[in-house]
Amino acid sequence: MSTHPDIRVVLVEPRNPLNIGAAARALSNFGFPELRLVNPYRVALEEAKSAVGAEAILTAAKEFATVADAVADCSLVAGTTSGSRRELAIPHERLERVVAETIHPHNGPVAILFGSEKFGLSNDDLSHCHITMGIPSRVEHRSINLGQAVAVTLYEIIRLDTAPSIAKDPKKPALAAEVDRVGTLMAEASMESGLFHEPTTESSILKLRQVVRRMGLTSADALYLAGMLRQILWKIRNLP
Amino acid sequence: MSTHPDIRVVLVEPRNPLNIGAAARALSNFGFPELRLVNPYRVALEEAKSAVGAEAILTAAKEFATVADAVADCSLVAGTTSGSRRELAIPHERLERVVAETIHPHNGPVAILFGSEKFGLSNDDLSHCHITMGIPSRVEHRSINLGQAVAVTLYEIIRLDTAPSIAKDPKKPALAAEVDRVGTLMAEASMESGLFHEPTTESSILKLRQVVRRMGLTSADALYLAGMLRQILWKIRNLP
Repeated sequence: MSTHPDIRVVLVEPRNPLNIGAAARALSNFGFPELRLVNPYRVALEEAKSAVGAEAILTAAKEFATVADAVADCSLVAGTTSGSRRELAIPHERLERVVAETIHPHNGPVAILFGSEKFGLSNDDLSHCHITMGIPSRVEHRSINLGQAVAVTLYEIIRLDTAPSIAKDPKKPALAAEVDRVGTLMAEASMESGLFHEPTTESSILKLRQVVRRMGLTSADALYLAGMLRQILWKIRNLP
Repeated sequence: MSTHPDIRVVLVEPRNPLNIGAAARALSNFGFPELRLVNPYRVALEEAKSAVGAEAILTAAKEFATVADAVADCSLVAGTTSGSRRELAIPHERLERVVAETIHPHNGPVAILFGSEKFGLSNDDLSHCHITMGIPSRVEHRSINLGQAVAVTLYEIIRLDTAPSIAKDPKKPALAAEVDRVGTLMAEASMESGLFHEPTTESSILKLRQVVRRMGLTSADALYLAGMLRQILWKIRNLP
C-alpha cells in the first residue's frame, strides 16, 4: 500500500482525545502521514498522544490557528458534512463520487476537513472548501462519530489502491493561499469602492470567497488576478 | 437508505465499552439493526449502553455463549482478519471483493464476525467462517481499531446502496446450525471408528468442520447428509 503525503487530514477544533487518537490511528493504518489540527482543545491533544499506535502521527501533527492557515498550501479543499448546505452553494456529493471524480484526479495537495464533534464544520470553515462530501447514512441517524468518519473517508480513498492509478489533470490548480489572496484583494477593492456595507460586509465576504473558489483558478491565473487587483486598489487609494 | 436485517454483526468477546458503543453507533448510522455479542465483558456492555446514539441497537443486542450459537441461523459466516490464516485453508480476500462477490449475492442470513480488541478472531472462531476478509492497511500498522473496523466494513456494504440490487443466488444455502450438525455427526462417526486419536482430536475436529463448511451445502443436502450420518452412527454403535 502506498502512502498519501499529498492528502492532509485537517481536524477543526476537535475536543475529545479519543477521537483525535482514533483519527490519528486511521491515518497510520491507511498510510496518510499528515495530520493537521486547527485550534484543538489543548488537554485533548495531550491525552490523545497516549493513543494506541498513533504516536508517530500525533507527534508530527501540525497545529494552526485558523482553517485558512491550515489549508493555505493546498489546491483542493474538501469538507465533510452530513448534507448539502444549500445557502453556501458549494457542490455536495456522496463520498465515493467526490473521491473518484475530484480527489483522485486532482493534481496537487488536497486538504480534507472534518468539523468538531459537536457542531461539524461552520459556514466560515466551509467557505474555504471547493466541495463538500457526505458519508451515506440513515436519515434517522445521520451523525457519524469523528474517528469513524475519518476511517471511512480514508478507506474510501485507499480501497482500490492496487488498481491502476488515475491520470492526473495536467493543469496546476492554484493553492488555497493564492486563491485567498485574490478573494481578499477583491473584498478590499469592493469595500474601498463602497460596494459592501455594514452589517452585511461579513456575509458578503464569505460569498465572495466562494465565488472566487468556484472559478477553479490555475496558479498562474491567480497570480495574474492578484497583480491586477493590487493595481486597482492602488488606483482607488490614490484618487485625489 | 435501506436497512439490512439479513446481516448480523457479531462481536466476539469485546472488552472495551467504547468500542462496543462505537460499533453499535455504526450499525445505527448505516442501517444494520442486529448486533450480536458473544461472551461480552459484562461491565463493558453496561457502560456501552450509555454511548451516544446507539441505545436502540444496544438494547436490542442479543448475547450468546459461543460463536456457534451466535451464527446458528446464518448461512454465510464471514470473519474479519488482518491477513490470511493459511493453516486454516479458509479463503481470504480484501473486504471490497468479499462484499461484492460473496456477501451481496448471498441469498440468506449473513453473520460478520469481529474478534476481540486484543486477540482478533481465534482459530476456533474462524473454524465457523466460510470466508475471511481484510481491510487493506499498511504493513507497518495493520491492526485497525474495532469500532473503526466495524464502521468501514458496514460502509463498504452500503456504499452503493442506491445502485440496482444484485441478483441473489437462487439456491438456498444451509444454515450454520445445519452445517454444524453434519460436522458434529461426522466427527462422532470418525471418533467411534477410531479415526481420530488424542491428542490430535481437537485439531482434527476443527479441520473437519472446515472441510464441511467448504462443501457449500444447500439446506436440503445438509439434512440429507445428517440423516445418513445418524444412520451410520447407529450402525457403528450397535455392532456386536
